Amino acid sequence: MKYSNFFLPTVKDAPSDAEIISHQLMIRAGMIKQSSAGIYSWLPLGLIVLKKIEQIVREEQNNAGAIELLMPTIQSSDLWIKSGRYDDYGKEMLRITDRSGREMLYGPTNEELITDIFKSHINSYKDLPKNLYHIQWKFRDEVRPRFGVMRGREFLMKDNYSFDIDENSAKNSYDNMFKAYIKTFIRMGLTPISLRAETGPIGGSLSHEFQILAKTGESTLYYDKKLETLNMNTIDPNELQSFYAAVDDQHDEKNCPISKDNLKISKGIEVGHIFYFGTKYSEKLNALVQDKKGKNIPVHMGSYGIGISRLVGALIEAYHDEKGIKWPLEVAPFKLSIINLMPEDQDCDTKSMEYYEYFMKNNIEVILDDRNCSIGKKLSDNELIGIPFQIIIGKRDLKDGLVEFKNRQTNIVEKIPIDNLINFINTILTK
Amino acid sequence: MKYSNFFLPTVKDAPSDAEIISHQLMIRAGMIKQSSAGIYSWLPLGLIVLKKIEQIVREEQNNAGAIELLMPTIQSSDLWIKSGRYDDYGKEMLRITDRSGREMLYGPTNEELITDIFKSHINSYKDLPKNLYHIQWKFRDEVRPRFGVMRGREFLMKDNYSFDIDENSAKNSYDNMFKAYIKTFIRMGLTPISLRAETGPIGGSLSHEFQILAKTGESTLYYDKKLETLNMNTIDPNELQSFYAAVDDQHDEKNCPISKDNLKISKGIEVGHIFYFGTKYSEKLNALVQDKKGKNIPVHMGSYGIGISRLVGALIEAYHDEKGIKWPLEVAPFKLSIINLMPEDQDCDTKSMEYYEYFMKNNIEVILDDRNCSIGKKLSDNELIGIPFQIIIGKRDLKDGLVEFKNRQTNIVEKIPIDNLINFINTILTK
Repeated sequence: MKYSNFFLPTVKDAPSDAEIISHQLMIRAGMIKQSSAGIYSWLPLGLIVLKKIEQIVREEQNNAGAIELLMPTIQSSDLWIKSGRYDDYGKEMLRITDRSGREMLYGPTNEELITDIFKSHINSYKDLPKNLYHIQWKFRDEVRPRFGVMRGREFLMKDNYSFDIDENSAKNSYDNMFKAYIKTFIRMGLTPISLRAETGPIGGSLSHEFQILAKTGESTLYYDKKLETLNMNTIDPNELQSFYAAVDDQHDEKNCPISKDNLKISKGIEVGHIFYFGTKYSEKLNALVQDKKGKNIPVHMGSYGIGISRLVGALIEAYHDEKGIKWPLEVAPFKLSIINLMPEDQDCDTKSMEYYEYFMKNNIEVILDDRNCSIGKKLSDNELIGIPFQIIIGKRDLKDGLVEFKNRQTNIVEKIPIDNLINFINTILTK
Repeated sequence: MKYSNFFLPTVKDAPSDAEIISHQLMIRAGMIKQSSAGIYSWLPLGLIVLKKIEQIVREEQNNAGAIELLMPTIQSSDLWIKSGRYDDYGKEMLRITDRSGREMLYGPTNEELITDIFKSHINSYKDLPKNLYHIQWKFRDEVRPRFGVMRGREFLMKDNYSFDIDENSAKNSYDNMFKAYIKTFIRMGLTPISLRAETGPIGGSLSHEFQILAKTGESTLYYDKKLETLNMNTIDPNELQSFYAAVDDQHDEKNCPISKDNLKISKGIEVGHIFYFGTKYSEKLNALVQDKKGKNIPVHMGSYGIGISRLVGALIEAYHDEKGIKWPLEVAPFKLSIINLMPEDQDCDTKSMEYYEYFMKNNIEVILDDRNCSIGKKLSDNELIGIPFQIIIGKRDLKDGLVEFKNRQTNIVEKIPIDNLINFINTILTK
């Protein structure tokens, strides 16, 4: 992509109501634009990242055997009245009356609808276990939307639902998703910490939330320091679930079961939540399956959510410095940026285009900054949008047969002979 | 994918309110499930097709230089009041009041919002032309939703918006999209016919609609028969726009400008619509750009829509027989189905798995029908869901060293020696 053909409107100052760093940086880097309170348009750069995160989540769901479908955003109130949640949900649910006077709502979650789909088509233990997911926009009418996409009203979420014949099997499904979640967050370059959680309005008896570590995170986490490395190595759900981990208001220093030496305190951001709630919805919505003895019993269910749009903000909270974003390679909007400092110079232009065309041909995601603007703005914009690897092409360096290479993670700049550059990039990209 | 792990609930009978064949077949093939009037869940098979169509549309938009972003589903009424369409749209617009009493709406189209994004970031002829698109769910509160996904209330649409400095340049952008549309529909295996159209509530002076040919289509088209072949060969927008084409109520037999010999009459389905409306929205929303002389002038705009969810229905209307769907290869949910007639037989099972694993390893989209059900149900379900190439593995054939190959387009079945099968499939897939 050439910058001049793209639509990447960086902004000098963040609006004053952008309280947290990810919100500020997303506005400044031209990733989002607010359209109403808590509702955003995803500009091209933001959308690329959103889609990369969505795709990682999708692939790990598929790897775990979950099947993708897609439920609509607008639902009828009928099923919610049956489940008892139409009143429970209160004002956070966006309620709508259609032209015929029917009560509708913008789905904040989908336990009711998926249970209805399940029961229309599955009625035997032979078709279990089943795990169905979708990735769809949700709406929660927050009283005070803030923090940009971290607590927006319209947000993108992956939610899935497991169906099992009994509690034992349901715990397997739960652990299977637990494992998929750890893998998902690690693939994005994040460090997840899993914590036993309250079940809240979803209901049920077993629940974990997943936080990712970020210095500017909203929660304070207290956990066994082994969790950080165990995550990366043995993803055994039962083992991970056995370690101590608590958020602020759960942690009691005096009664902490682990020693001070093993306890680590970090800031975190919640990005996922999983629930086992047994037969709560299947009983109310009459989702029965025949067991081996021919008896109709309510199916055991769990639900599992990952905040996809929230993760864009969470990743920035985890990876930034005072100059801007530092994308991990796996979710970066482009892996490479070629910064032509002097587009009006023939040599700079030729060399930039030569590299650009090579990387394009080899399907390496690259953006060519070919704008006519000051060198200072060009360098600071590229720091701001945080492309991991940056090739800086200037007139003086070129005369010496060199280009600059900047690693945005370390901010180290080195000079590379022009003929070595492509080999050099290919090597770091395959590391 | 193995059928036994998938969620593909075929249904024997379509509901009585499913009037048209695509609606009947989508329900029967387990592609969609209605959740409310005109609102559907996309079951896994339907979603795969929807995403394939979406991806073709996306690729052809990108090829034409359009840039993807994503606007939200819920909008504030503010901009619509400014543009004057808040009242114009009437009851078809789904209006919502949020918890703070603000008037919101579920976007039926996005001229207002995109103009607002444009004007916040672009103010010079130097940044033009620009073409921005998104693929997002829309809602139109139809008085009588029907025909399944063909006239649903919640539907997926690609809409884009071009911005140009003057009318000449805007006509280039229009023609560029015109060409992209023809290419898009041809890639899906469809025959598009472009017709001069009324601009309706979008406004403006120039508009074309795109119909695709289908025997069961809703409109009757009268057009120069050269259009069908010209589409495929020279996609020259000006040439295509010069040929005669009219729908039912535009066509007047007595005053038809072409001879009866050249006139063709076919049934069609509208799947796309493009508009040039000049400065209608930019004036009202104050979207000005500086021209070469430094004067601020309202930007010239066009908008372009493709009904992505509607295309799923349209494709079925174009490609089906009395037994079910006949997917064109490019949009088929799977290219290949391996139908194991006797999963309990060791030889059938081994051979099916051998083929299945080979195609999976080679990234050929394949579904293995490993269900324990009658041979009759297995064959008729596979005809219904319409996978283009079907490999049928039965006990008796296997003993003779043969498997059956069925081409769902022609319904011709032939016996293939088991050792030739993989070569045979590779050959037809690369044709």
